[in-house]
Amino acid sequence: MSVKWQELYSARARGMKTSEIRELLKLASKQDIISFAGGLPDPALFPLAHFQEVTDFVLEQKGKKALQYSETEGLGELRELLAERSRADDIPCDAENIIITSASQQGLDLAAKVLLDAGDTCLLEAPSYLGAIQAFNAYQGRPVGIPLDDEGLRVDLLETKLRELRAEAIRPKFLYVVPNFQNPSGVTLSMERRQRLVEIAARWDLLIIEDDPYGALRFSGKPLPSLKALDPDNRVIYLRTFSKTLAPGIRLGWIIADKPFVRQIAIAKQATDLCTPALTQHIAYEFCRRGYLEEYVARVREEYQRKCQCMLAAMDEFFPAAVHWPKPTGGMFVWATAPAYLDTVEMFPRAREAKVAYVIGSVFYADGSGRNAMRLNFSLPTLEQIPQGIERLGSLLRAEIASHEGVVTLEPTRVH
Amino acid sequence: MSVKWQELYSARARGMKTSEIRELLKLASKQDIISFAGGLPDPALFPLAHFQEVTDFVLEQKGKKALQYSETEGLGELRELLAERSRADDIPCDAENIIITSASQQGLDLAAKVLLDAGDTCLLEAPSYLGAIQAFNAYQGRPVGIPLDDEGLRVDLLETKLRELRAEAIRPKFLYVVPNFQNPSGVTLSMERRQRLVEIAARWDLLIIEDDPYGALRFSGKPLPSLKALDPDNRVIYLRTFSKTLAPGIRLGWIIADKPFVRQIAIAKQATDLCTPALTQHIAYEFCRRGYLEEYVARVREEYQRKCQCMLAAMDEFFPAAVHWPKPTGGMFVWATAPAYLDTVEMFPRAREAKVAYVIGSVFYADGSGRNAMRLNFSLPTLEQIPQGIERLGSLLRAEIASHEGVVTLEPTRVH
Repeated sequence: MSVKWQELYSARARGMKTSEIRELLKLASKQDIISFAGGLPDPALFPLAHFQEVTDFVLEQKGKKALQYSETEGLGELRELLAERSRADDIPCDAENIIITSASQQGLDLAAKVLLDAGDTCLLEAPSYLGAIQAFNAYQGRPVGIPLDDEGLRVDLLETKLRELRAEAIRPKFLYVVPNFQNPSGVTLSMERRQRLVEIAARWDLLIIEDDPYGALRFSGKPLPSLKALDPDNRVIYLRTFSKTLAPGIRLGWIIADKPFVRQIAIAKQATDLCTPALTQHIAYEFCRRGYLEEYVARVREEYQRKCQCMLAAMDEFFPAAVHWPKPTGGMFVWATAPAYLDTVEMFPRAREAKVAYVIGSVFYADGSGRNAMRLNFSLPTLEQIPQGIERLGSLLRAEIASHEGVVTLEPTRVH
Repeated sequence: MSVKWQELYSARARGMKTSEIRELLKLASKQDIISFAGGLPDPALFPLAHFQEVTDFVLEQKGKKALQYSETEGLGELRELLAERSRADDIPCDAENIIITSASQQGLDLAAKVLLDAGDTCLLEAPSYLGAIQAFNAYQGRPVGIPLDDEGLRVDLLETKLRELRAEAIRPKFLYVVPNFQNPSGVTLSMERRQRLVEIAARWDLLIIEDDPYGALRFSGKPLPSLKALDPDNRVIYLRTFSKTLAPGIRLGWIIADKPFVRQIAIAKQATDLCTPALTQHIAYEFCRRGYLEEYVARVREEYQRKCQCMLAAMDEFFPAAVHWPKPTGGMFVWATAPAYLDTVEMFPRAREAKVAYVIGSVFYADGSGRNAMRLNFSLPTLEQIPQGIERLGSLLRAEIASHEGVVTLEPTRVH
């Protein structure tokens, strides 16, 4: 007798959907497609020589510790080092405010696990990071989107939404926000809005989950303070990761938060995976201690800036005037919005034929809107591929718009 | 205004308890204590030279892949290799039946995540693995223990319990079982009971989660077939790990199960941590491919057998006659049961004074019983420490029993 799995799944599991992006990425992984889908760092830049050097050192000098079980909270010396560096960024903290996670996706999972009951409302930017929407859905949270613009989250609309929810006697569990070079929109929360957001959070007693995977990838200008640095109440749960600054293949991140919350996360983590690998933590610690991280991040920043400028220039040249995009000043993504009638999901098979790929906008909205938008990644494609791919995409977009307007235009229609 | 965390936690989180064992282990980690607590492999045996060799190879030859994001299901070549080896153990499977996890604790977490709704009954051995109880509690499952004896799970009592539950219209979601050298009891499920268990599961349409971390650590005799190998219906979810056979510090395990279930686990895993580190998976693959795993496991087996015999001999010599223990034929643990009046929790501070540590029995029971039992680990302490520690523990146990009986006996009372 075969097992009827569907009958046995939890309500939680029945609510999980296989990610559309995942299926699309499989389609887009053919060799001859120029892909702006995915959100991968450029492996050509990986610091392999330094990585090899520190790994040799770790296995020679600390092998027995690196291969053994370790503390659920993470390697003591790594937590100390991260605390010290955070203090330099004006975040008052010590090692006990920090727990190491299997990259920030696990930070999201654990935060949702200890905060969300089925049906609990949580707020996030619209659009927002797909992995966060999935993590919150997996605990049957009810994600509610707050629009953003070129200066990031519309904090005025946040307050309106909080008022609406209060009228319905709903207290949202938290606001999830990516203030720097947001995924997918590429926008950065302005200084003024950061301050207002922290004030609003205090006034409404609202937790903030601040996710900052891209902050170190700023192309120019001075970094803005994190929400965590502006937060006097310890109500910000700050998620960081080595995925974009060292390597995603080591799956290492960390949470900085109020100590009672960190202890609760540790209890949840123990039941989840006991501990994060000691081996990769020792490697990351040694990599940071020797100053290799800053050196590497500087190179990454420079190369991504070059690629970003290349993409923006190509978009200026090849995209129709009806398509808009905020200019990112860091990170890995450009977010392009077409007129409302254009459907990037429907257009996707034609893009495949034209051998170019993007991520459809709708996966970044909890409510499935955003079908006229697309996310374009510039960190992975080469400087040769970017203008070629953008040209292909530009032709497609022009054709879509022309067919809607009943006119066939083969030449660029953009008016500068 | 400071955050009132307790008000914000999910019902799930409020049900999580900080593990007593965790606190006890902290007490027991002082240098001069001989500890039989914990369940750590002996780091003196770690295959550091081979590990270094394969890590060098991976970083040199496959560095860009090893440091990049990878598939949620795990590294293709590792899944192929594990499938091939499983087929050699009479488990019909291919790579699509396998998903790589962050050790088997994550296997337990993900299985619970996709199977358990709040209040769902799940069955397990009494006593059972603490980490499993924690994983099931974290999703508000209701663990119900079925006693075991020297031949493992009492399958007769399982059927009685299933009948009782059916009378209450309760369908348990699964049975969790560790058939080989069980943690904490050290006992092994007999061949006859394995066959009966699989028959009962088919008759009652009951899922089985079979956890086999210690199967490879058999001291003598031929291995018994896994439940998975005896299961024609694909109703066994089989959890394996590299933690006891290669190294816990790489946090790698795998699930072998029916393909629809593996796909559901992959969806859940994606929201949990996206993927397991590519780096450690490449290392494990190369370690296995070169035949280093068998070589290492053979050494571990031999050394643990020596330590186990040393512990059993010391227990025969120093433990009072009123204490009983099944003799393990593999694994890492001996489980000692004292008369019902003896309380190992209460005795623990006196053990600390005597500079010896164990794990209290009650943490291995979902209902908190087992306070007269203790788990003793023999893989980590040295051959010099084992008899010394057992002698200390023997004196303590004799003193406890004597004080209960109103007689102070300082000499061994055991009658052979």
